[in-house]
Amino acid sequence: MLNAPEFDETFRKQFEELLKWRRDVRSFRSDPVDGQLIEHLIGLASLAPSVGYSQPWRFVLVESPECRESIRANFEHCNREALSLYSGEKAKLYANLKLAGLGDAPVHLAVFLDPHTDCGSGLGKTTMPETLEYSAVLAVYTLWLAARSHGLGVGWVSILDPVEVNQGLSVPNEWKSIAYLCIGYPREDDPTPELLRHGWENRLPVTDILIKR
Amino acid sequence: MLNAPEFDETFRKQFEELLKWRRDVRSFRSDPVDGQLIEHLIGLASLAPSVGYSQPWRFVLVESPECRESIRANFEHCNREALSLYSGEKAKLYANLKLAGLGDAPVHLAVFLDPHTDCGSGLGKTTMPETLEYSAVLAVYTLWLAARSHGLGVGWVSILDPVEVNQGLSVPNEWKSIAYLCIGYPREDDPTPELLRHGWENRLPVTDILIKR
Repeated sequence: MLNAPEFDETFRKQFEELLKWRRDVRSFRSDPVDGQLIEHLIGLASLAPSVGYSQPWRFVLVESPECRESIRANFEHCNREALSLYSGEKAKLYANLKLAGLGDAPVHLAVFLDPHTDCGSGLGKTTMPETLEYSAVLAVYTLWLAARSHGLGVGWVSILDPVEVNQGLSVPNEWKSIAYLCIGYPREDDPTPELLRHGWENRLPVTDILIKR
Repeated sequence: MLNAPEFDETFRKQFEELLKWRRDVRSFRSDPVDGQLIEHLIGLASLAPSVGYSQPWRFVLVESPECRESIRANFEHCNREALSLYSGEKAKLYANLKLAGLGDAPVHLAVFLDPHTDCGSGLGKTTMPETLEYSAVLAVYTLWLAARSHGLGVGWVSILDPVEVNQGLSVPNEWKSIAYLCIGYPREDDPTPELLRHGWENRLPVTDILIKR
């Protein structure tokens, strides 16, 4: 039996800093990222909780120019369509936002859910099958936080047609696309969410999100 | 402009310990938990990433005996149904697993998604609307990790009928039930997932979860 670690106030303060400076990064320096570090981060991501210990996350390291180009074209198309949904000031603001670092991020990592995994024998997901998908989402965030602790920035690109992501990367059709991640050393750091800084949205007060029963 | 914190090797090692000792906890000591600490943890949870900075998470602190009883009855019913899906050794193993700490956890916290929030103006979720749900999931995990850094254990109960959760807690029907969390000081600590320790499932090797393209 191992002794559980006691986390002290120094660690907790640093951990809170990590949560604040985690941020979604869309501008990356060209410095290369050590491949072993990426594999280490994927190992840490696998420490995420998963329903029934199903570990349904699948990682695809996207390196070939052809695959990256398919994602870039997918994003450009979807982003143009999304822009057309706004008008006036909001459209101007949207058009000026940099919403992905696909061009400059040295590492591209796609994360999928394998919904047909036998692992876990279905425990815990009879009433809420979506918890399988949630497990893959938690692996993404684990990797994100761990990356930041190594000074790396991560940007989650969701403005993509998920079916085309699978086609472009030649992964099984039945895998569900969860996240497309751009990873690299950030060009700038800021603890304030980019969409808050640029006036897109404000922070909600705790009274708006907490009730008692 | 603030200076970004530099995380050192000491912090990274402790953070990896936090990920390993995070665990899903199902047995709690009866010691009370400071209410201010819970509100602090909910504040930290709101630092989770959210699509378009939509902050769609809603927290319900469940304190009344009536509401807690509705959840306990919901779990008992769903867990019996789930057990009936297994047979032989797997059924015996399932029946012996303690899958929730609803009876002994001093704090019960339900987490919902408000899918109709205007916050974020829909940015980033046109092609993948499920990212709104993912945002609420990330808030759960942020709270979970932060709680562990304070020595608290969290158990995520998913063996619940989500529609009945809303009814039992009198929250709007359109909110989506994401997680029901039991929180308290754990009766035991272990860095090995309970379902791995009890022989339910094994850890997948990295070769099973990583491919290159």
